[in-house]
Amino acid sequence: MKFEIKNRDAAGRTCRFTTKHGTVTTPALLPVINPNKMIITPKEMKRLFGTEMVITNSYIIKKDKKLKEKAIEKGVHNLIDFDGPIMTDSGTFQSYMYGNIKIDPLEIVEFQRDIGSDVGTILDIFGTPDQTETKATEGVQETVKRAKQSMKVKGDMILACTVQGSVYPNLRKKCAEKLSKINANFFPIGGVVPLMENQRYSDLVRGILASKRGLNPSKPVHLFGAGHPLIFPLAVALGCDFFDSSAYIKYANDGRMIFPEGTKKLDDLDELPCYCPVCTKFTASELKKMKKPERTLHIAKHNLYVSFAELKKIRNAISEGNLWELVERRARSNPHLLEAMRELRKTENKTWLEQFEPISKNKALFYTGSQTIHRPIIYRYHKRLIDRYSFLSDSAAILPDGKKPYSKYYSNEIREILAKRNDVEIVVNSHLGPVPIKLDEMYPFAQSIFPEVTDKETEESIKKIFDEFMRGKKAIFWKGEKTLQNLSKPQEKTTKDRDLERISAVADMQFGKNASKALFDGKIRIVKSKKTGKIRNIYCDEKHVLSMRAGDGLFTLKISGAKMLHNFFKYPKLRVIVQEDATPFVKDGKSVFAKFVLNCDEELRPFDECIIVDKNDDLLATGRCILNKIEMSSFNFGMAAKTREHIN
Amino acid sequence: MKFEIKNRDAAGRTCRFTTKHGTVTTPALLPVINPNKMIITPKEMKRLFGTEMVITNSYIIKKDKKLKEKAIEKGVHNLIDFDGPIMTDSGTFQSYMYGNIKIDPLEIVEFQRDIGSDVGTILDIFGTPDQTETKATEGVQETVKRAKQSMKVKGDMILACTVQGSVYPNLRKKCAEKLSKINANFFPIGGVVPLMENQRYSDLVRGILASKRGLNPSKPVHLFGAGHPLIFPLAVALGCDFFDSSAYIKYANDGRMIFPEGTKKLDDLDELPCYCPVCTKFTASELKKMKKPERTLHIAKHNLYVSFAELKKIRNAISEGNLWELVERRARSNPHLLEAMRELRKTENKTWLEQFEPISKNKALFYTGSQTIHRPIIYRYHKRLIDRYSFLSDSAAILPDGKKPYSKYYSNEIREILAKRNDVEIVVNSHLGPVPIKLDEMYPFAQSIFPEVTDKETEESIKKIFDEFMRGKKAIFWKGEKTLQNLSKPQEKTTKDRDLERISAVADMQFGKNASKALFDGKIRIVKSKKTGKIRNIYCDEKHVLSMRAGDGLFTLKISGAKMLHNFFKYPKLRVIVQEDATPFVKDGKSVFAKFVLNCDEELRPFDECIIVDKNDDLLATGRCILNKIEMSSFNFGMAAKTREHIN
Repeated sequence: MKFEIKNRDAAGRTCRFTTKHGTVTTPALLPVINPNKMIITPKEMKRLFGTEMVITNSYIIKKDKKLKEKAIEKGVHNLIDFDGPIMTDSGTFQSYMYGNIKIDPLEIVEFQRDIGSDVGTILDIFGTPDQTETKATEGVQETVKRAKQSMKVKGDMILACTVQGSVYPNLRKKCAEKLSKINANFFPIGGVVPLMENQRYSDLVRGILASKRGLNPSKPVHLFGAGHPLIFPLAVALGCDFFDSSAYIKYANDGRMIFPEGTKKLDDLDELPCYCPVCTKFTASELKKMKKPERTLHIAKHNLYVSFAELKKIRNAISEGNLWELVERRARSNPHLLEAMRELRKTENKTWLEQFEPISKNKALFYTGSQTIHRPIIYRYHKRLIDRYSFLSDSAAILPDGKKPYSKYYSNEIREILAKRNDVEIVVNSHLGPVPIKLDEMYPFAQSIFPEVTDKETEESIKKIFDEFMRGKKAIFWKGEKTLQNLSKPQEKTTKDRDLERISAVADMQFGKNASKALFDGKIRIVKSKKTGKIRNIYCDEKHVLSMRAGDGLFTLKISGAKMLHNFFKYPKLRVIVQEDATPFVKDGKSVFAKFVLNCDEELRPFDECIIVDKNDDLLATGRCILNKIEMSSFNFGMAAKTREHIN
Repeated sequence: MKFEIKNRDAAGRTCRFTTKHGTVTTPALLPVINPNKMIITPKEMKRLFGTEMVITNSYIIKKDKKLKEKAIEKGVHNLIDFDGPIMTDSGTFQSYMYGNIKIDPLEIVEFQRDIGSDVGTILDIFGTPDQTETKATEGVQETVKRAKQSMKVKGDMILACTVQGSVYPNLRKKCAEKLSKINANFFPIGGVVPLMENQRYSDLVRGILASKRGLNPSKPVHLFGAGHPLIFPLAVALGCDFFDSSAYIKYANDGRMIFPEGTKKLDDLDELPCYCPVCTKFTASELKKMKKPERTLHIAKHNLYVSFAELKKIRNAISEGNLWELVERRARSNPHLLEAMRELRKTENKTWLEQFEPISKNKALFYTGSQTIHRPIIYRYHKRLIDRYSFLSDSAAILPDGKKPYSKYYSNEIREILAKRNDVEIVVNSHLGPVPIKLDEMYPFAQSIFPEVTDKETEESIKKIFDEFMRGKKAIFWKGEKTLQNLSKPQEKTTKDRDLERISAVADMQFGKNASKALFDGKIRIVKSKKTGKIRNIYCDEKHVLSMRAGDGLFTLKISGAKMLHNFFKYPKLRVIVQEDATPFVKDGKSVFAKFVLNCDEELRPFDECIIVDKNDDLLATGRCILNKIEMSSFNFGMAAKTREHIN
């Protein structure tokens, strides 16, 4: 099995998952194939929806003599006529649904192995939401025990070890930790179907987060039984990679059409509010008039078109860097889902999510409502503002939010203020939080779109941050020229280097407090774009230390800059430390693969600039992280950091 | 021309618009056909997207010798090979785009008439957003003058008279009023393209609302130049019936794909995040590799699939009664659109919108965010609570929001409270506002879904309503048995008739303050459903006066009940007054058509129960309104009220 991150946003990721039968791009949806009754064959699914992997049920195969014989003789791929990766389920869900079913937990794993399943599943104990913690703990213990035993008999099959723990987050986390320790390769999160059926999305979010906290981050995570696209964006943002859908056919049997925002009954529809190939070919009344098997087939296809497209939208959002926006928008479709989003406002969850959050994005940040301000990237910014930003004076002139970039929009005001009070900081009291004017081109300030009025919750959250940032300083709210006249004596006019202040502020925010002291300790020359006037390249004593990116206003670290930071900051700050084997390759400019990473700075974030060193802390290169520390420590496949400039 | 309302929600409506060349269901999108270059022919559009009507440009036809000759000789339908209704534009937009173009305002109307256009457009003066009010007023005056002159030469063509007025709402309203007076039949709202291009959606909303206020409500309204589905739901909710799209092809030429949430460049996409027939047939890289004309064609088709489906979604939302939800959700896609939604919180706008808001809906009310509480139906409820609800005591026990219906969820608490303080009202302090327990089955209380926590803005809005409702009364916040012990002396136990209190409260809210005194002045017998225990039928002195509907907890008015209300309430309260010609038909149970309505109670709302009387105020029937007063006074087609029970 190979599992490597190709792209990422939020705690979600687009990965390549490789099995004996080929490669799957995640987040992926595995349609459930009933081997007794294939309404749509896996081959047809591949053709119509681009289905790369399916799931079928080994318990159902095993209990049917004919299916069992054929599966053992010719393999499960032959049985359902599909040459891509196949996952099999074990009968756990059937035990939960229909009570005590006789299945031997090891026999069913061996059976899955024997029929050539790519990913087989242990027979875990389904933890129901109404269980006591004691009962749930017993279930988890038995699940872990079975997982351990199953690992011994799985052969070269990938074994899915399901995380259980009912509605008890600590139990989920413990279960996940134990399963991770036995070195399993695939982790379903189980026992969630009744939560979804009853729209207990807050419990679902807590369950996913607790499981993810306990799991090895380098392994695929499958939200077992989740087949409705309503939940896909949020589940992906929290780190789920796989879904499976029997919903497409169950709902179709019942005349229900799946939409990303919810479900509609065909009988309630005069028109089909959809543009899928089914709904553009037939009218509502044509579908209604069809005989049931035909109608069911068409609705099932509609359901799969919609479900697969939602995953495309999610992968697209990951690549654009606006997955949180999709999550927040979708949450508005369902009040219970909206309620569940409040889980993401808890500090412990923001702290966990922030680790995975890319340092900047390709697209502008759109405000969708009061949840926006709780996105990990904004949480990070607020923290860094307090921890890393150096106030150059004990007072600040405060401007209200305005057009972007602020320094351009407020150029007159800035001139006026500086003419009177050369010593004050200028801070925009923005919808995103306080923005010192020097940071106004840094992502996400210039790259965010907010309405003129946000909402009371956002305002109150931001006021708290503003007050914390300004603690011990004097805030002078700018109301035109007169504001300062009464408040201060005009200063002696000194010529401050505003550009130097700007690059210093950004460098501190990006690399750590006082990074600017290391980087700009010499004669500074700043080269600007002739076209836009924006800062492009920075030289210190004629060494090129940094470039500023036009897109996100952050720095790209040059090798000379890396040397300075490397001298200044103590190990392992900003470092990615590579094994000896990899050292010569990195020195030659090859990228750093995860399996060669020895250690890394725990503050490095995806897409952060980093310093690549060997085990003796000798500088090898500069690079851009793809993974964070806990990922670098656990992934065996894929790139950990892309080398930018190397020492040779 | 016929234009009649078939279904409605918000201030939006599904109508049938009939022309010489057939009937169109609105809200409708008219793709712009360039007669010089039909990328997709109108016939093909009809086949693929169900296009019923198209728009082409008479100025472009007229200035091309060949096209002009063919159009005059064989007609515009032949020219573009389409036998459905065709609208033509006049060249106003070209004048705006390319400066002074020579077009004679009357000649161009005559030309449209001569080529057989179903809907021709006057040559109005495009009001740009940057105009002074003086300049804009001049433009409006000239537009109105031209409209008047054009009316004389239009023949039997439907004439579209465009409402202008730049960004000045009063001017828009005046223009709309003047155009309505000249008895034109079709009203585009013009000059909005630059507002949409610059995402000035607040100005757009103000412009639409002002135009609608001035326009005859029985005429179709066209948002001229609006072709992006992002704006469709809101525009429809404000009363727009037609859109036209040149965006589908303009965007396609530029490689841009339209989505309901915005636009994406094909070049930015690795995968196509869409399930339309184009995007399920081709991959992103296949589309990118195509030669430009082919790629443009496919993107144009995608754009039309998406745009037409959005209208289906809107019509579906109108039929389900959840158009506001769709509007609120879509607004989260774009911060500027979200900002524009705040216009709908202004009292003047809520008051206007409330007139058109149906009295109840088919589907539950979903909370989407702080905007929800400002929906007209909630605004109406709050007003009626203050105006119509009769408090039976000077204190109330206040319960927090809970599961629905409240009386079932809180049955223990209610028993406890009543055992101690038989005289207090019981009120749930819900997310929707105060809900006296007797109203808990009335739409939208039992039929609304809110998260457990809403948001600060909603909470503050609701607190104001709660305080207003409780003014002069004592609120006893229920915190278990002990709450009342200290606050009050146990009352003497009287046996109050809780069911009678319930039906009285609902009747007052639905029909007007003290309606219950008229309806229940006798021996009351209440028949309940054996299955659900809910109130079904109410008899007063053995006359069947009301039935309570299971779906929305509101009453259906029986003829005996109508007699009582008719006696009790002064003319024209609750009445729809019909002309003499129609009297015998209504007496026989035929429905009331709009053109036969003489007058009606201005407080009647769509789907309200009404009393149908003749001009002498003699009772003819009971019915259910389809239209409100201003609509009944202006519509010449379609049903005004559906008769339920008649006097014969």
